[in-house]
Amino acid sequence: MTLTPQVKKILSHYESDNPGTKANLVKLMNTGKLAGTGKMVILPVDQGFEHGAARSFAANPPAYDPQYHFQLAIDAGLNAFAAPLGMIEAGASTFAGQIPTILKVNSSNSLSTLKDQAVNSTVADALRLGCSAIGFTIYPGSEYFFKEVEQLRDLASEAKKAGLVVIVWSYPRGPMLDKAGETAIDICAYAAQMAALVGAHIIKVKPPTEHLSLPAAKKVYEEQKIDISTMDKRVKHVVQSSFDGRRIVIFSGGEHSDDKTLLQTIKGIHDGGGFGSIIGRNTFQRPKAEALKLLSEIIDIFKK
Amino acid sequence: MTLTPQVKKILSHYESDNPGTKANLVKLMNTGKLAGTGKMVILPVDQGFEHGAARSFAANPPAYDPQYHFQLAIDAGLNAFAAPLGMIEAGASTFAGQIPTILKVNSSNSLSTLKDQAVNSTVADALRLGCSAIGFTIYPGSEYFFKEVEQLRDLASEAKKAGLVVIVWSYPRGPMLDKAGETAIDICAYAAQMAALVGAHIIKVKPPTEHLSLPAAKKVYEEQKIDISTMDKRVKHVVQSSFDGRRIVIFSGGEHSDDKTLLQTIKGIHDGGGFGSIIGRNTFQRPKAEALKLLSEIIDIFKK
Amino acid sequence: MTLTPQVKKILSHYESDNPGTKANLVKLMNTGKLAGTGKMVILPVDQGFEHGAARSFAANPPAYDPQYHFQLAIDAGLNAFAAPLGMIEAGASTFAGQIPTILKVNSSNSLSTLKDQAVNSTVADALRLGCSAIGFTIYPGSEYFFKEVEQLRDLASEAKKAGLVVIVWSYPRGPMLDKAGETAIDICAYAAQMAALVGAHIIKVKPPTEHLSLPAAKKVYEEQKIDISTMDKRVKHVVQSSFDGRRIVIFSGGEHSDDKTLLQTIKGIHDGGGFGSIIGRNTFQRPKAEALKLLSEIIDIFKK
Amino acid sequence: MTLTPQVKKILSHYESDNPGTKANLVKLMNTGKLAGTGKMVILPVDQGFEHGAARSFAANPPAYDPQYHFQLAIDAGLNAFAAPLGMIEAGASTFAGQIPTILKVNSSNSLSTLKDQAVNSTVADALRLGCSAIGFTIYPGSEYFFKEVEQLRDLASEAKKAGLVVIVWSYPRGPMLDKAGETAIDICAYAAQMAALVGAHIIKVKPPTEHLSLPAAKKVYEEQKIDISTMDKRVKHVVQSSFDGRRIVIFSGGEHSDDKTLLQTIKGIHDGGGFGSIIGRNTFQRPKAEALKLLSEIIDIFKK
Amino acid sequence: MTLTPQVKKILSHYESDNPGTKANLVKLMNTGKLAGTGKMVILPVDQGFEHGAARSFAANPPAYDPQYHFQLAIDAGLNAFAAPLGMIEAGASTFAGQIPTILKVNSSNSLSTLKDQAVNSTVADALRLGCSAIGFTIYPGSEYFFKEVEQLRDLASEAKKAGLVVIVWSYPRGPMLDKAGETAIDICAYAAQMAALVGAHIIKVKPPTEHLSLPAAKKVYEEQKIDISTMDKRVKHVVQSSFDGRRIVIFSGGEHSDDKTLLQTIKGIHDGGGFGSIIGRNTFQRPKAEALKLLSEIIDIFKK
Repeated sequence: MTLTPQVKKILSHYESDNPGTKANLVKLMNTGKLAGTGKMVILPVDQGFEHGAARSFAANPPAYDPQYHFQLAIDAGLNAFAAPLGMIEAGASTFAGQIPTILKVNSSNSLSTLKDQAVNSTVADALRLGCSAIGFTIYPGSEYFFKEVEQLRDLASEAKKAGLVVIVWSYPRGPMLDKAGETAIDICAYAAQMAALVGAHIIKVKPPTEHLSLPAAKKVYEEQKIDISTMDKRVKHVVQSSFDGRRIVIFSGGEHSDDKTLLQTIKGIHDGGGFGSIIGRNTFQRPKAEALKLLSEIIDIFKK
Repeated sequence: MTLTPQVKKILSHYESDNPGTKANLVKLMNTGKLAGTGKMVILPVDQGFEHGAARSFAANPPAYDPQYHFQLAIDAGLNAFAAPLGMIEAGASTFAGQIPTILKVNSSNSLSTLKDQAVNSTVADALRLGCSAIGFTIYPGSEYFFKEVEQLRDLASEAKKAGLVVIVWSYPRGPMLDKAGETAIDICAYAAQMAALVGAHIIKVKPPTEHLSLPAAKKVYEEQKIDISTMDKRVKHVVQSSFDGRRIVIFSGGEHSDDKTLLQTIKGIHDGGGFGSIIGRNTFQRPKAEALKLLSEIIDIFKK
Repeated sequence: MTLTPQVKKILSHYESDNPGTKANLVKLMNTGKLAGTGKMVILPVDQGFEHGAARSFAANPPAYDPQYHFQLAIDAGLNAFAAPLGMIEAGASTFAGQIPTILKVNSSNSLSTLKDQAVNSTVADALRLGCSAIGFTIYPGSEYFFKEVEQLRDLASEAKKAGLVVIVWSYPRGPMLDKAGETAIDICAYAAQMAALVGAHIIKVKPPTEHLSLPAAKKVYEEQKIDISTMDKRVKHVVQSSFDGRRIVIFSGGEHSDDKTLLQTIKGIHDGGGFGSIIGRNTFQRPKAEALKLLSEIIDIFKK
Repeated sequence: MTLTPQVKKILSHYESDNPGTKANLVKLMNTGKLAGTGKMVILPVDQGFEHGAARSFAANPPAYDPQYHFQLAIDAGLNAFAAPLGMIEAGASTFAGQIPTILKVNSSNSLSTLKDQAVNSTVADALRLGCSAIGFTIYPGSEYFFKEVEQLRDLASEAKKAGLVVIVWSYPRGPMLDKAGETAIDICAYAAQMAALVGAHIIKVKPPTEHLSLPAAKKVYEEQKIDISTMDKRVKHVVQSSFDGRRIVIFSGGEHSDDKTLLQTIKGIHDGGGFGSIIGRNTFQRPKAEALKLLSEIIDIFKK
Repeated sequence: MTLTPQVKKILSHYESDNPGTKANLVKLMNTGKLAGTGKMVILPVDQGFEHGAARSFAANPPAYDPQYHFQLAIDAGLNAFAAPLGMIEAGASTFAGQIPTILKVNSSNSLSTLKDQAVNSTVADALRLGCSAIGFTIYPGSEYFFKEVEQLRDLASEAKKAGLVVIVWSYPRGPMLDKAGETAIDICAYAAQMAALVGAHIIKVKPPTEHLSLPAAKKVYEEQKIDISTMDKRVKHVVQSSFDGRRIVIFSGGEHSDDKTLLQTIKGIHDGGGFGSIIGRNTFQRPKAEALKLLSEIIDIFKK
């Protein structure tokens, strides 16, 4: 498959990576209905780790089965499916070669009080399971952040050598941040910048709000008249904060009152130059037909 | 390229190092407009880690792009460019062989409350990216200082074996120091001495103020009539405190009200026998033409 | 130093290499009087290993001193100096940073009856001595060829990870080849192709003769009317055989009756698109002034 | 050099050590003006780490230069010079083979509030720098003491395998000890005993005072009528506490009102059977001629 | 001990070595009656390995005892004593620190038909035994030469890192050489050159004869009028072949009809600029008094 100009351009930004990593980046970009557009929609299913199975899957019982998610991602024409070790192991043979997978190597859970994650799988796991990437969460602002960065350093270094892609979930939290601060535009852009600086190939952040959390940042945003009035302006700023667009930034679905609001957010992501969405709960917590419909609408937005 | 007497003399001070490290020291000293003078001006860009992208780059939006900084360092005729992993990865191929690079292997950030840094890259990264040196920050006075020194020991030992240069950012902070204490002349000279003792090839400190922080030190400075009345006298004392000039000491730009004050500080650094400046914010936060003009003036001071 | 279009183009051929290796390729190409031309002249001094000191240096006694050769390479404006461990160790500090060096990690000698070489230094040596590349000889056709290739595999893999350049001396010999066969055009082009296939960044072969050694090859060369009538045609064919010019191929000086013949050969190398010469005996076995004159004439040919 | 009976006897106490360590013990004992006496005077310069350069060297500015101290130790005819990594690196080539060196592998500083030290160099450093011994400080009584002992265990084990001597600075401090307690005779003798028990070859303690710190100890000292009335009696007791003289115990100079008091202390050390002195501040903080005079007087005491 | 100009000059030739190796070179040069002259006489006792005890020691039965040799080297004021593992182990404690030792890490024997040596000890042995150097024999010309060089590479690399000196016994033999060829001047000089190229610090060869073994070499020696008519001329040529005197070359005693001839040979070595002798059989196979007398005469020659 020849590369489109969009994919070629994005690929050129990964100039220090080996061809193995480049091939996996292409695989992620050239799979599904968005193949060749340089955009991506990914299905992440680590909800069970964070909240337990019932809170994750009871609303749509077939989703208790890991293979449901592989198939959903394929049927919806997504770019990839991301999950922790056990869930990948539960379908990796059946769906081998059918959908790129991302091994989420660390995970949090709501029974723990620590603002941290445990590393529960390895680069070797990713290779034996045929994954294209590893996913790793950092919590900028947490008291565990430095430890997380050092864990990421080791995993990312090994992954890059093995030709894998490194995707960093960058989710600020910690003593300096209240709930509103965690998705504030200044914090979100800062989180993206930090993920880029520690060597992420792909950065995942939450859709930012108009809020400005740090006084020192607020001052600069106002002085420099950085436009953060709409989602697309904010996304544009986050993309700019990710090496001026040299790194793929994708956005989680976030919490929404209804699909309309979700689709508006995604439209904002697209209009602002975001590279895609990573949508979990909003899709697997409803009947498959509805999920496919919603995903189709999302994809249509990114296709434009 | 034949060595000048200045470069030869400086090189002779690194008598325990292998030829690989010596070659990289020469590379740092023989690049750019100051080549051969034994002086150096370095562009460091780790501001994004410390304060986020907007606070670092919004004042001059092209600076969001990592390659802007590689090009700025080249166009200004600087000796080297220093940055964290992701930023070096984003330009290391395009600018391979055009400007010596320094991999800043640990980094702090303003979302963390810890007076510490995370080690986010390795000596192997420095080699695969073609860097000439690693940079490492220690915080003398911090409760993490001992841990940092032990991290530095391992990284420096590996770097020296591989023929790399080790640059130590020595920034005092911690329970015994108030804001004024962090740049006090006694503290700054002490920080330089500690960096030298742990085996730094190049030491980076802040321009010291006339303030004396520790009472025990104050007594000695007064008794011994150590002249700290002007910047050049203070710089001279810091150089003396770095093995009597056997180690290269360079100074950060610091915060300044205007360019005139900055240039006066740099004149003081030069007159006091300092080996150069490492100037970030003061250059990349203004339009490129202005940055080049300022850097040109700085270089002119060191050329004299 | 900005890259010339020639250097940029050559560099683009090394697309699977990390920025460290690219930086060292640029260093080799951007040093000396041919800097920026994409051409290179290298001084190799492993003659002493092959024939002893007297047969190598008695004709020009100052050449007994290793530092003579470092200085000769610098004074002549060459791109690099290549030698075995001991010779590099004897000058690596004095000339640190003044001339790129190539550590010849294996060596043959004329007291041995084996058509093989011993690996007498390592990638770690290359790093501690500040070398830009390792050099390794393979003998395609020898009964030791497979062992050599496997030694090269390990060394090259380690060297590439560390950002070094891998230069392969590809010298056919063995039971199937008579003396004429060793420099026959079909064999020489075959040797270049094998070096390229085992992953050499730079390939060194001997200037090929019009002779065709293997009957099976002869048939093809004649059927396909491959023009091998002149040196430039043969060099063109060797370059073509080195991935159609995607790998730098340089040619040894060979034995010549006089300088005029040597310069004609080099003119052929240049006209045929060869990337340079690696000239030992023809330069260090004569008084320095004469060597400089000859090297100047050689460089002039490549500058055109 | 044939061994004197004194050196032979001391050496016989190190019966479990390998010949490499014995050779280095002999080297320490057979260097300088005290060669062969079984006594030693050592110059330690880690003052800069503990108090900064000015408080260490301003009183005698040539001492800012590390090489000053190498030369001072040689000119005074001392047995060895001890310093942290950077200071040894700054002179190890120039003075190679001229004076035994001791690499002080951990260091404290007065900007830290922790009663601990950071390990900033390694046994590999000691070997590459040609040192005869490593020096390590423990703080019996500190909350970090167990950690320190375990660090020492690893370093000492590695050092002994490599034929190096292990010197332990044993400096009591911590919650159970007030200022007077730190140099109390019961504590000092206890500190020496602990250093001996963890496997030190040479023990460094402070000259003990008549004070008895621990009530339980006080009882025994009084019941058993241990004579601690004079320095020589106390030193005798410390030596006895160091395996009845089977381990070399040396004493720091301590703080003194004047040279006369210092020399009296040293006379006490000598008369009590102490093996020597390790004198830093008292020598390098005065002009060289005066330092040489004082050291000569100290040596004369030990020569008797 | 301050360095003499001779020692300083020799030391400066080892510019790529760490201070540890430099310190051991100084130790070898600054021990015994030749201390400071830059010359050395070494006692090697590996005869027992090569020919058995009786053939080695029956002529002087006290020599069956390893400690006899340590004492002989000390009493004669030699620079060092070289022997295989067991012999060093048998005296290393008794003579610790009294005489530098060289651990001969590989050995041949006359029961084997192979022209090879077995590596029977390690760098770790050298360190635990307090040796200053390792000794290694290569047989240029032997079918095992390449294997030997690769063993030497690993041992030398480890030894250099640990600050030891590497001494190479370079003894040509093999299918291309008859008995006369093994000591022919062209072969001997070639052997010295090869030892230098593989990174030896000190080279040991046999005193060369006037014979020229290789026809190709003979031609050059005659054409270039290399004077090989007397021992001093030949030694001068061997020294020149050892990087023009940048490497210490010492000569074995060789077989002699009587002491007068031996002393003439040694006079030739001295007059030709050789750095010393390594004399075994000629000394320990006679009563000690006679051995001391002979060694005294040898030392007197080198003192001039």
